[in-house]
Amino acid sequence: MTLKNLMEEMLPAIEAELKMVVSSPGNIAFPELREMLTYHLGWEGEGAGADAQGKRIRPLLVLLCAQAAGQDWRRALPAAAAVELLHNFSLIHDDIQDQSELRRGRPTVWVKWGVAQAINAGDVMYTLAFWALQRLEETTTAQTVLRANRCLQLACLRLTEGQYLDLSYETRAELALADYWPMIQGKTSALLGACAELGALAGGASAAQQAYFREFGIKLGLAFQVLDDWLGIWGEAALTGKSTESDLVSGKKTLPVLYALGQQGEFAERFQAGPILAQDVAEVALLLKRDGAEAYTLEQAGRLTAESQEALRNAVPIEENAASLRELTGMLLKRKN
Amino acid sequence: MTLKNLMEEMLPAIEAELKMVVSSPGNIAFPELREMLTYHLGWEGEGAGADAQGKRIRPLLVLLCAQAAGQDWRRALPAAAAVELLHNFSLIHDDIQDQSELRRGRPTVWVKWGVAQAINAGDVMYTLAFWALQRLEETTTAQTVLRANRCLQLACLRLTEGQYLDLSYETRAELALADYWPMIQGKTSALLGACAELGALAGGASAAQQAYFREFGIKLGLAFQVLDDWLGIWGEAALTGKSTESDLVSGKKTLPVLYALGQQGEFAERFQAGPILAQDVAEVALLLKRDGAEAYTLEQAGRLTAESQEALRNAVPIEENAASLRELTGMLLKRKN
Repeated sequence: MTLKNLMEEMLPAIEAELKMVVSSPGNIAFPELREMLTYHLGWEGEGAGADAQGKRIRPLLVLLCAQAAGQDWRRALPAAAAVELLHNFSLIHDDIQDQSELRRGRPTVWVKWGVAQAINAGDVMYTLAFWALQRLEETTTAQTVLRANRCLQLACLRLTEGQYLDLSYETRAELALADYWPMIQGKTSALLGACAELGALAGGASAAQQAYFREFGIKLGLAFQVLDDWLGIWGEAALTGKSTESDLVSGKKTLPVLYALGQQGEFAERFQAGPILAQDVAEVALLLKRDGAEAYTLEQAGRLTAESQEALRNAVPIEENAASLRELTGMLLKRKN
Repeated sequence: MTLKNLMEEMLPAIEAELKMVVSSPGNIAFPELREMLTYHLGWEGEGAGADAQGKRIRPLLVLLCAQAAGQDWRRALPAAAAVELLHNFSLIHDDIQDQSELRRGRPTVWVKWGVAQAINAGDVMYTLAFWALQRLEETTTAQTVLRANRCLQLACLRLTEGQYLDLSYETRAELALADYWPMIQGKTSALLGACAELGALAGGASAAQQAYFREFGIKLGLAFQVLDDWLGIWGEAALTGKSTESDLVSGKKTLPVLYALGQQGEFAERFQAGPILAQDVAEVALLLKRDGAEAYTLEQAGRLTAESQEALRNAVPIEENAASLRELTGMLLKRKN
């Protein structure tokens, strides 16, 4: 079965599992509170629909890993719902922390309901993530559910550590390349590692295999983030057309920027001279390239992609069982936007 | 053993369990992030010490219930740490939501580290609560740990629902007496109910007995909150001396206020006329009393106290086994401040 066919089955099943948890009045009695969550998840309110829902990459990764480990992916649905809810909890709080007014083109939860209610809505989403995970009880053993809990809790610890670093970097004057990796390990790759591990766990993989799956998810997350950093500067949307979308304008501490600051060349000089405006984007991107930042970034993305493929080979030794996961990886690591 | 003697053993054990979870670099690698938590818990930073730590009522309730159910209370320490961490997560977020600048006489986390980091510190504390709970694995069965997880998750859902109501009441014009109970059921009594239930669960009580313990905790929480509302208006600190501490000045929607608004008497008229200043407190408290609000509040506190005692009798049929719990209840429900 191709990835496309699998996704046609999996995506509606993921939405159904999510809705069972989030939209149940037995879980949340108050309609307005439920509305904050269903709005954020892209199901209701102005602008609701596929574009507002995100790509559900994380739950797909869980289900594909469960299948690659040799089980019916439906058994892993509670874990798939859990990681998506956890991801969305972090987005609700992230939007408050970054004062982002838009997410996927729609006003963020704090813009619509205020900061106080948005903090609380995030807390509810967090609670529902682990509530969803406990439904694994119906498809697996108590021991396995406990291990799944530990796995997701550990990802939360790393995620909040990454968030701490990201926030603290905003006010730190001196940042080095070495500061980059612990931040994205927490912010991006810990949860993707947990997705792959949870899928393997629900899919009945051995402890050794689970570790390979986890490694695969972590490396995939790192490669994904590094590519995202490249796209944020040299991607089509960033470089041409909507140059306000360039990470250079928002001042993000991405991999190419931190690399080039360490080179102390032309880019570093320009960066310290003051904020980069939309009209400067093409020129500054050229300085970055000349200082070797683009080559370094692509090299890192290539290395991490190769490492994730190597981990996947160890996790799923029979090549044809890994076909759909390899297809998903390709989709994520070859995107242009 | 008297409550005093028990507390002398239990309180240091609670702190040790909390510290094992919160202060471990294995759980949180970054010292500054750990510092936000150890500061809030009253262990470190300016003003650290017993006064800054709170009374640890919730973990004590867990341990006393475990003992009353017939087990060594040490087995319940992971659950005791979990409820205290969960309570403190809610305080960190609550202080941001209410824009409270002081807690127990010290600057709140958001005042010291900013709103963004404080939201994240609360998220870390939340994660550690469930991380702590999972340590029950060492003293009990996997099935029991899963039930404990469900119990605390349910308390979280009710807690965040109560918080939603509390926040939404701030902007709602018309509030009735009936709006009061669901809010405090969520904000105060759901967690106390979970404390008693978790203690009973870790203490090996039957499902039927656990339900009585839970009922006991819920009623205790309601009685505690109603008394707190009474103290906030007629307590010594509120009425004389520090009248700025009166709930009448902060405009809280407490039980006496909601009762009296429903009576549409002199108090309701005064309340709608404009904010109540510190110098008006004694006079407005008298209006409340004349409209029957004090009598109603004390009557409710009495009823709920009696109901909590009745539930405790059902939970612990052998009277001497309930002695220390009865003593704790008395301490909580007869306080003057």
